[in-house]
Amino acid sequence: MDKKLRLGFPKGSLQDSTIELFKKAGIKINVSSRSYYPSSDDSELEIMLVRSQEIGKYVEEGFFDAGLTGYDWICESGAKVKEVCELNYAKSGFRPVRWVLCVPEASKIKSIKDLQGKRVATELINYTKKYFAKNKVKADVEFSWGATEAKAGTLVDAIVELTETGSSLRANKLRIVEELLTSTTRLITNAKALADKWKKEKIENLALLLKGALAAEGMVGLKMNVPIKALDKVTAVLPALKKPTISQLSDADWVALEVILEEKTVKKIIPALKRSGAEGIIEYPLNKIIY
Amino acid sequence: MDKKLRLGFPKGSLQDSTIELFKKAGIKINVSSRSYYPSSDDSELEIMLVRSQEIGKYVEEGFFDAGLTGYDWICESGAKVKEVCELNYAKSGFRPVRWVLCVPEASKIKSIKDLQGKRVATELINYTKKYFAKNKVKADVEFSWGATEAKAGTLVDAIVELTETGSSLRANKLRIVEELLTSTTRLITNAKALADKWKKEKIENLALLLKGALAAEGMVGLKMNVPIKALDKVTAVLPALKKPTISQLSDADWVALEVILEEKTVKKIIPALKRSGAEGIIEYPLNKIIY
Amino acid sequence: MDKKLRLGFPKGSLQDSTIELFKKAGIKINVSSRSYYPSSDDSELEIMLVRSQEIGKYVEEGFFDAGLTGYDWICESGAKVKEVCELNYAKSGFRPVRWVLCVPEASKIKSIKDLQGKRVATELINYTKKYFAKNKVKADVEFSWGATEAKAGTLVDAIVELTETGSSLRANKLRIVEELLTSTTRLITNAKALADKWKKEKIENLALLLKGALAAEGMVGLKMNVPIKALDKVTAVLPALKKPTISQLSDADWVALEVILEEKTVKKIIPALKRSGAEGIIEYPLNKIIY
Amino acid sequence: MDKKLRLGFPKGSLQDSTIELFKKAGIKINVSSRSYYPSSDDSELEIMLVRSQEIGKYVEEGFFDAGLTGYDWICESGAKVKEVCELNYAKSGFRPVRWVLCVPEASKIKSIKDLQGKRVATELINYTKKYFAKNKVKADVEFSWGATEAKAGTLVDAIVELTETGSSLRANKLRIVEELLTSTTRLITNAKALADKWKKEKIENLALLLKGALAAEGMVGLKMNVPIKALDKVTAVLPALKKPTISQLSDADWVALEVILEEKTVKKIIPALKRSGAEGIIEYPLNKIIY
Amino acid sequence: MDKKLRLGFPKGSLQDSTIELFKKAGIKINVSSRSYYPSSDDSELEIMLVRSQEIGKYVEEGFFDAGLTGYDWICESGAKVKEVCELNYAKSGFRPVRWVLCVPEASKIKSIKDLQGKRVATELINYTKKYFAKNKVKADVEFSWGATEAKAGTLVDAIVELTETGSSLRANKLRIVEELLTSTTRLITNAKALADKWKKEKIENLALLLKGALAAEGMVGLKMNVPIKALDKVTAVLPALKKPTISQLSDADWVALEVILEEKTVKKIIPALKRSGAEGIIEYPLNKIIY
Amino acid sequence: MDKKLRLGFPKGSLQDSTIELFKKAGIKINVSSRSYYPSSDDSELEIMLVRSQEIGKYVEEGFFDAGLTGYDWICESGAKVKEVCELNYAKSGFRPVRWVLCVPEASKIKSIKDLQGKRVATELINYTKKYFAKNKVKADVEFSWGATEAKAGTLVDAIVELTETGSSLRANKLRIVEELLTSTTRLITNAKALADKWKKEKIENLALLLKGALAAEGMVGLKMNVPIKALDKVTAVLPALKKPTISQLSDADWVALEVILEEKTVKKIIPALKRSGAEGIIEYPLNKIIY
Repeated sequence: MDKKLRLGFPKGSLQDSTIELFKKAGIKINVSSRSYYPSSDDSELEIMLVRSQEIGKYVEEGFFDAGLTGYDWICESGAKVKEVCELNYAKSGFRPVRWVLCVPEASKIKSIKDLQGKRVATELINYTKKYFAKNKVKADVEFSWGATEAKAGTLVDAIVELTETGSSLRANKLRIVEELLTSTTRLITNAKALADKWKKEKIENLALLLKGALAAEGMVGLKMNVPIKALDKVTAVLPALKKPTISQLSDADWVALEVILEEKTVKKIIPALKRSGAEGIIEYPLNKIIY
Repeated sequence: MDKKLRLGFPKGSLQDSTIELFKKAGIKINVSSRSYYPSSDDSELEIMLVRSQEIGKYVEEGFFDAGLTGYDWICESGAKVKEVCELNYAKSGFRPVRWVLCVPEASKIKSIKDLQGKRVATELINYTKKYFAKNKVKADVEFSWGATEAKAGTLVDAIVELTETGSSLRANKLRIVEELLTSTTRLITNAKALADKWKKEKIENLALLLKGALAAEGMVGLKMNVPIKALDKVTAVLPALKKPTISQLSDADWVALEVILEEKTVKKIIPALKRSGAEGIIEYPLNKIIY
Repeated sequence: MDKKLRLGFPKGSLQDSTIELFKKAGIKINVSSRSYYPSSDDSELEIMLVRSQEIGKYVEEGFFDAGLTGYDWICESGAKVKEVCELNYAKSGFRPVRWVLCVPEASKIKSIKDLQGKRVATELINYTKKYFAKNKVKADVEFSWGATEAKAGTLVDAIVELTETGSSLRANKLRIVEELLTSTTRLITNAKALADKWKKEKIENLALLLKGALAAEGMVGLKMNVPIKALDKVTAVLPALKKPTISQLSDADWVALEVILEEKTVKKIIPALKRSGAEGIIEYPLNKIIY
Repeated sequence: MDKKLRLGFPKGSLQDSTIELFKKAGIKINVSSRSYYPSSDDSELEIMLVRSQEIGKYVEEGFFDAGLTGYDWICESGAKVKEVCELNYAKSGFRPVRWVLCVPEASKIKSIKDLQGKRVATELINYTKKYFAKNKVKADVEFSWGATEAKAGTLVDAIVELTETGSSLRANKLRIVEELLTSTTRLITNAKALADKWKKEKIENLALLLKGALAAEGMVGLKMNVPIKALDKVTAVLPALKKPTISQLSDADWVALEVILEEKTVKKIIPALKRSGAEGIIEYPLNKIIY
Repeated sequence: MDKKLRLGFPKGSLQDSTIELFKKAGIKINVSSRSYYPSSDDSELEIMLVRSQEIGKYVEEGFFDAGLTGYDWICESGAKVKEVCELNYAKSGFRPVRWVLCVPEASKIKSIKDLQGKRVATELINYTKKYFAKNKVKADVEFSWGATEAKAGTLVDAIVELTETGSSLRANKLRIVEELLTSTTRLITNAKALADKWKKEKIENLALLLKGALAAEGMVGLKMNVPIKALDKVTAVLPALKKPTISQLSDADWVALEVILEEKTVKKIIPALKRSGAEGIIEYPLNKIIY
Repeated sequence: MDKKLRLGFPKGSLQDSTIELFKKAGIKINVSSRSYYPSSDDSELEIMLVRSQEIGKYVEEGFFDAGLTGYDWICESGAKVKEVCELNYAKSGFRPVRWVLCVPEASKIKSIKDLQGKRVATELINYTKKYFAKNKVKADVEFSWGATEAKAGTLVDAIVELTETGSSLRANKLRIVEELLTSTTRLITNAKALADKWKKEKIENLALLLKGALAAEGMVGLKMNVPIKALDKVTAVLPALKKPTISQLSDADWVALEVILEEKTVKKIIPALKRSGAEGIIEYPLNKIIY
């Protein structure tokens, strides 16, 4: 019988970006509408869609060997799981999300201390209650089913809400008082799966590929011809940590230089490379990077 | 200062159908993205979008004078509110929704009694717990954040889930064991609002218009010319409860007959009317009906 | 056991316009993707989607009690069926389609006689062969799987092709030489179904409703108040065949006049009615008209 | 030879709403992409699309017999034309547009007088120059090709810009200093066309139908049965200017009452009608109203 | 006069995937609606859209020098053509399609032998008749215009139908009895075109480019730095048939290794490469591969 | 305080293609609806959207340090600006646009001389007037607000209009008499900005990146293994100007050859390379090329 890794996959806001990341990592996942069991071209995976909020619990209980979910919901659920790796993306980009305590722009509340005896609404209720307790503030923290932003200043005094870019908070004229939690996506597993040699290696390979695909995000390859006498000047332009690959050309006075860079630095570096003597600079796209 | 009725409006699955119903009732509501305060052309309304699950609570607490939400969530929240009227629609049609106890098609569970000591997942957790207690069945009822259908038979033994047409249950190969609750939308208010004469009348007018718009759904008007000697035969074809409007034509041998009917009955009635002697039958659309 | 009328429904180009017509007639048909058995809100119908080309054959063989298809395909298949009624619509409008013999604009062919010994492509191959034989022209008529318009002048000398508005012929720079066939949709049945009293009445009712819905297309209702002394002048403006409904108003000098007219005539008639003394003219939409 | 009315039709922002209005008036206009000569089902019209800004000029010069354009562009171009009727709609609704003098919210400019020696950008350059001259303010008024709102406070001191709802001004944080012009759509013609009897009548009929279609906007029909003894109370609820149509029912104690009302008043009137004794109130939609 | 290769291009289900393949091969084809003569940026091609079913015939007759169509329709039409190369794609993917004999899941028919004296519907009528004859089974094989899946078990006993993924068969609850034919796309030509030196080379170049573009589908490039002492271990991980390109780096202890791999193998190979000592592994996309 | 380069960005037809070009150059620009101040990920840019027609003027006046606009509008406005570089793209492709003098196909006008005393409409009014004066032709040149193509032959005798592909002229049956101006996009600046060392370098870097991104358009990379003895034959196939990068492989008889080529030449070159002895040819995509 073929071995399978049972994988809890986050249904909802993380779903599309996680499918996209798997695709870059070389695993195509196909979700058909109304089905909770996506197919994939990796026959060793058995994938099930479950809400991010619940993946921690089901990995802990052993229903899944591994799962992908946000650090925030791992904390909220209190699930006892092993983190395999951190993956720095969230629902709409390659950056963490933040849970923040917010009040209306015009509110007199300046710090969490001012919320003593007040009413706070949030979807992240367990974590928030602990956070208030740790800060020795007694407040009435109530569960919000959603549309939380609208409640601040009307139905409650403050909210604890998720934000990625802050634009939704600005649109609702809210002010951030304090950040409670920064969260990225995590690949998690449990002790039983790690005790199985095949599963352990499968999970580690998955982590390697997902990290390789994430690393290639926003990175590009640069190739150029450099006269040997200009090589020091050219390499001085490159970020210290990036070791370029240098190979001899047929013409003994020239080498080919190849380097991987962050796309956003290229607009500064290319003009500098050209001024330092590099020629025939080309930039090309990447799929994956495994350092 | 102008008087305002504060109205809790259901954000989410009921939102679009409720906006549509208000439009038919003559009140245009305009929701801009990211805002929780829709504008309307009824300057006496102050509308706020809140999740269906929470509207009962906020009407009870007096944050709203009135609200629209499902009977299911009124029960679940246990909110103490006054029901103004029942409105027979739900998220995708003019019929009630049902919360049903489901198991996989192949499961051995035949009745709620078979769930003693088993695990049940549902979003309607309070109501379900009470229902099991009333049936004297001890089961582990746990809250589900969503994607509940996938859990039956894998993560839990049974689920309690919402269904409108049953097609999603069929697609997930689930069998209904028992119906826990039938739910339609309700216009609700509280004692304080009813004690204010202006608010009371405003709420009653709103109920009248919403019921009038709902009544026109699936109804059409029929007009025809009838020779007086055929009048009895023609009226015999019409449903007993529908009193037609009959007016004299200039030609003393003919009357004009006008009647409101359910659209779905028309395909039977029109051929019968024609055979009974009616002529020039026309069918026309309606916006509202107030009996 | 409930009685059912088995109805062959045209899959393809006629499908959407036929569903639309049934809806206006009061019967909602719902086609789900990949299923050939649409559901409807008329429980006495059992509907199956079959290609227009084949409906005649299957009605003749008794697989269906009745069917809707084009007159062209009834002719082409040579099916022996009974026509219940003609319905004047085709795939994209309320008018017949035409099968025409076409050649490139610059071709020397002026009449069918010039095609002696030439090559002709068409999807309507049997009918075309008979037509050429009747005209005593020997030509090589070959079956075309589609994209027929492109073939005229390149792969063959002439084509016989369907046209509704002629715009596709113009776009392909083709000239019409002759019209072979004018076709509308037909409701057809067979002798066996007509021998069953229940089926016969069901088919006749269906014909009545479909014709009523078609009749309302492009028609509107007009209502106005007319001083009795202007009544003759006002009615003189109306088309002779349209008998208006006239009813007495409370004010003895005035009557209410109501009439159904073609929408396209209204732009001439309304100004004339107003000049003749009619007041408070309103125009309203119709669903169905059964004369 | 058939007579034709040459009609200048506004290409651009007014185009869609004007086509929509013609459709309600009973004239279907079909614009194909890239063609400036829309077809219509009124064979007496010859329509050409021209920019609103230029229609006045071409009607004046006699290239067109009639045209539809905004009052603002008639003023701007200074064209000598005859106005047939005012049509109260503009590009996105049934209300006038306004040209307003705007400055940034924080600007010190409070009135047009403060613009002495300043720089003003606008698309409506001739009208604005005359307006400043009339107000004896010397300013540098320059033509703006568009994106005018962005210029206020950066590239120029003030702008004169079109606004319908004010939302674009608010989004750009602009404050209105003064209104220069209120504009609606006009049907215009010239002396030569009016001297032709056929053209004159054609233009007048067109005006009648367009006004009738506009009048039906936001209007609905109401029909109800009223006991004769309650008739005074019921009619007292109706707006004074709306004369209802009252007809006798077969039952001598009852009359049928029919009236046309503004849709937005219905939400107040229907509850009142019901309390006054009306029964079986139905509301139905209208296409046109010709008073 | 410029030489031209007349190319028959498959209109319909193969059209989009063929245009896509040409694009990858470096030839941009632009189809405008209603035209059967797509333009391309290869001025030596003269392309015409014709149905897949007919391309074989027209290549045989010499109307086209070459064409692209499915192997199934070449067989069905019995056209005598020369196959230049097989291209392994079909309408929705890079795999063959299959024509299969199907019956309803519950049918008693287990093999083609059970169809003696039965009725079979198919679009591939000639091929199917020959296949039944070869199997010495006499059945009534009739032409189906489409919607064939619905017919099995209702109108006929079995069907022969096209399938790519089998999902449509499953949706219609059909069981495959036997596979008649596996088909991919073919580039075909005729003897006359091959006798023309210019056309022969043009067709061969086209084949080379199309195969190169197809080969790059699902392939990726991998580049890495390898210590010379680990080179054997690293190359042992690579598939035996893939000869990597190895070049010396400036640092004498390291080489650069570059290899082209199937994307689907990468998820296994990358972790192994890393464990074998490769560093700085990057994966990059490819357009074409010509071995 | 951070330095900023104020950049005028063309709102309207050039906007999308310019944003696309910046993205390829490594600068992401984000335009939100209704805002004229796009954000970008280059914090040294301060971007404002202004009409192409006006950018020259505002760069000249120093409101912007640099801007992107068409050469046509620089000429039309007569703005005194410094051109940094030409960028060979326009609104819908990588080629210049042309302003041409057009008349109806059937017009008798054959050259500009035939327009003496005639009427000409154009949006490019200043340039056209100068052009007619230079050609010593007196014509009535009038400003057109748009829809200019429709005017030729009806409202005026000729027009001067923009064309990219000529398809719109053909659709309106216009014939080109003469070309007045060929225009591409330009990066422009003014003397004051060039006098600021930081701004000068920023503008030059921007030019380098935009040209690099444009250069990569339609270019691809080709990599192959070549036996040393075939190297001369292989390089003879390559365009003379393209210097390939050649590096030694571990196997002393082989080299790796890498070259950048125009994508449209590849369909000729790849077959030739293969015939010359190259193996394992792969083609890969590029982002940027800096020679």
